[in-house]
Amino acid sequence: MPDRSRQTHGETRPATETHPTPALVMNRRLIRDKYREFRSQFPEATIYYALKANPHPGIVRLLQELDCHFEISSLGELELLSEMGVRSRRIISGNPVKERAFVERAHASGIDLFAFDSYPEIDKLEECAPGSRVTVRLAVPNDGSEWPLSKKFGVEPREAADLLLRAGERGLKPVGVTFHVGSQCTRPATWAVAIEKSKLVWRMAAERGLSLSLLNVGGGFPIEYLRPVPSTAEIAAVVRRSVAEAFPEGVELAIAPGRALVGEAGVLAATVIARAERDSRPWFYLDVGVFNGLMESVGGIRYRMLTDRGGPAVRCVLAGPSCDSFDVIAMEAELPDLQVGDGVRIMSAGAYTTAYASQFDGFQIPAVHYTE
Amino acid sequence: MPDRSRQTHGETRPATETHPTPALVMNRRLIRDKYREFRSQFPEATIYYALKANPHPGIVRLLQELDCHFEISSLGELELLSEMGVRSRRIISGNPVKERAFVERAHASGIDLFAFDSYPEIDKLEECAPGSRVTVRLAVPNDGSEWPLSKKFGVEPREAADLLLRAGERGLKPVGVTFHVGSQCTRPATWAVAIEKSKLVWRMAAERGLSLSLLNVGGGFPIEYLRPVPSTAEIAAVVRRSVAEAFPEGVELAIAPGRALVGEAGVLAATVIARAERDSRPWFYLDVGVFNGLMESVGGIRYRMLTDRGGPAVRCVLAGPSCDSFDVIAMEAELPDLQVGDGVRIMSAGAYTTAYASQFDGFQIPAVHYTE
Repeated sequence: MPDRSRQTHGETRPATETHPTPALVMNRRLIRDKYREFRSQFPEATIYYALKANPHPGIVRLLQELDCHFEISSLGELELLSEMGVRSRRIISGNPVKERAFVERAHASGIDLFAFDSYPEIDKLEECAPGSRVTVRLAVPNDGSEWPLSKKFGVEPREAADLLLRAGERGLKPVGVTFHVGSQCTRPATWAVAIEKSKLVWRMAAERGLSLSLLNVGGGFPIEYLRPVPSTAEIAAVVRRSVAEAFPEGVELAIAPGRALVGEAGVLAATVIARAERDSRPWFYLDVGVFNGLMESVGGIRYRMLTDRGGPAVRCVLAGPSCDSFDVIAMEAELPDLQVGDGVRIMSAGAYTTAYASQFDGFQIPAVHYTE
Repeated sequence: MPDRSRQTHGETRPATETHPTPALVMNRRLIRDKYREFRSQFPEATIYYALKANPHPGIVRLLQELDCHFEISSLGELELLSEMGVRSRRIISGNPVKERAFVERAHASGIDLFAFDSYPEIDKLEECAPGSRVTVRLAVPNDGSEWPLSKKFGVEPREAADLLLRAGERGLKPVGVTFHVGSQCTRPATWAVAIEKSKLVWRMAAERGLSLSLLNVGGGFPIEYLRPVPSTAEIAAVVRRSVAEAFPEGVELAIAPGRALVGEAGVLAATVIARAERDSRPWFYLDVGVFNGLMESVGGIRYRMLTDRGGPAVRCVLAGPSCDSFDVIAMEAELPDLQVGDGVRIMSAGAYTTAYASQFDGFQIPAVHYTE
């Protein structure tokens, strides 16, 4: 990390230095390349961008041009896509729990695929989106993922089959299974286990006369922060092989990457606004912190940071600008001995940064800019 | 908690039920009463509202009418107060680390008191706010506080005196000490210890010919969530006695409550949007969660929640509406067996709720309403 932190990255420097900080500079070419990589690695799959990762209009526009589909959770996300002219047949609702007003509006606008995993949600869908296609959210092991998602959503195969059958009795169209291996999952075998588990739902449903067709393997594809991660190709190979083995009769495949499509394309440009010595260690305070962009540092993400300041790396603490004690980016970092006014480029910051940001304590959310 | 969760609270019900949820309903009378309580318990102190707790314009307007002063950290907060016509001599800058542009603008607008705790900050203040009054931030024990703040800011007495003397050499006016016992501090003696420690800075400065006059004892005054807390009167008695003992010659006293002025005045009205059974336990999903209002639940705050649903309390999990696994309000809660559509009133939610909120995943930030 010390070596990397001193390294410069000529390609993105000019762009980030032309804007006042904090600023998130998104590289369109990197998003395009990443989309095409997913397109070629998952040739038969429909690709849904998980909008929550970064809902900035410029990203939506670019992915629209590339013919990408979208996965959303809320009325706010639906309104954004509607305003931008994304056709409803390119949108699915991926949140197993949904506000009633959202379901009504989504159905009225023509969205026809909803995930669910509970009986009350069947009542809601029957009433607000009658006749819609539905997938059940399956709980799967989240081994190797940075943030396991398994507790909040998902059911076991037996209940999944029960739910699908009940949905069918209520006039909905039960079409398949959706799962999520957890965010930033670095273990390809985890997808294989989840696909095997999905197959159980297929069998249990078939035994009761229900034929399924759609498998959404979700997101969780990792990006590189400080450590190397498995490539899209490696994970795709595991997914394709597992799907071929589990579903020799064929299956309609969907994927829903968020972080992986846009994360590495973003550089968050920040400035050191203050420094202090505390307990014999320098503290560097940036104009972006936990609340206005770096919320994922609380969850353990450590970003690669580049700066033009030379000299040996020092052990330091990196904090955000607010008065809040929670606003510490890293208690253990190694960076050159930064001075007030120095610029810092935070790499792989295109996902889950501005998306989580608030204006707490009056600090601005980074403006989003684009380079080709 | 089970008993309380079934209790209703007639006073706030009509107000919260007239607005679509999520909505934060602030009771002006409770804010006024609390301000007057602080006013009478700290008769000689200047009261600065820590704006970050809840910067909604309606609160600023009300506190302005009451003749309250304000403590701010950023350009955003300064702009808000300027737009609302708050005079600069009623505003101080409490953040020990500050953006240069903020210091310049604050000085230009007439703000004349800045906290600091590092040498680079002296350079900044000398250049951008020459001749200003400054207080040094002292590190003090945070025993009994919910969120200790001591690591991010503050210096020991010897360094505090050194910093004040250096500031004086640079043409700034070193006037005293500021400290913070930590947020939601339930141990009155912690203020006494901090005041004793402040006295050391007075002595060390005096030995070197510098006479100090201003003591800002900060915020940290607790409010009632689920458990009773010491009253303002109890804490004020300790503070007044400690100040009288430590500073028999008299001192200019300042306090900076945030949470305590507005927290108990706010009720966050929410709706159960979904429920599911997971691992034999009900999960209730509200339309407000960690990202759009209840961020402090991550830090351990457990709110009192009221509902009209009857029946025995059940052990349940309470989660927010987003797709995010981090968006869980409480893994262990006891509430009546709520159904989709039920209203929930989250009590003591006037501080650090909408202030931290973002629109992550497209969910709206609660609108703020007022009752008399």
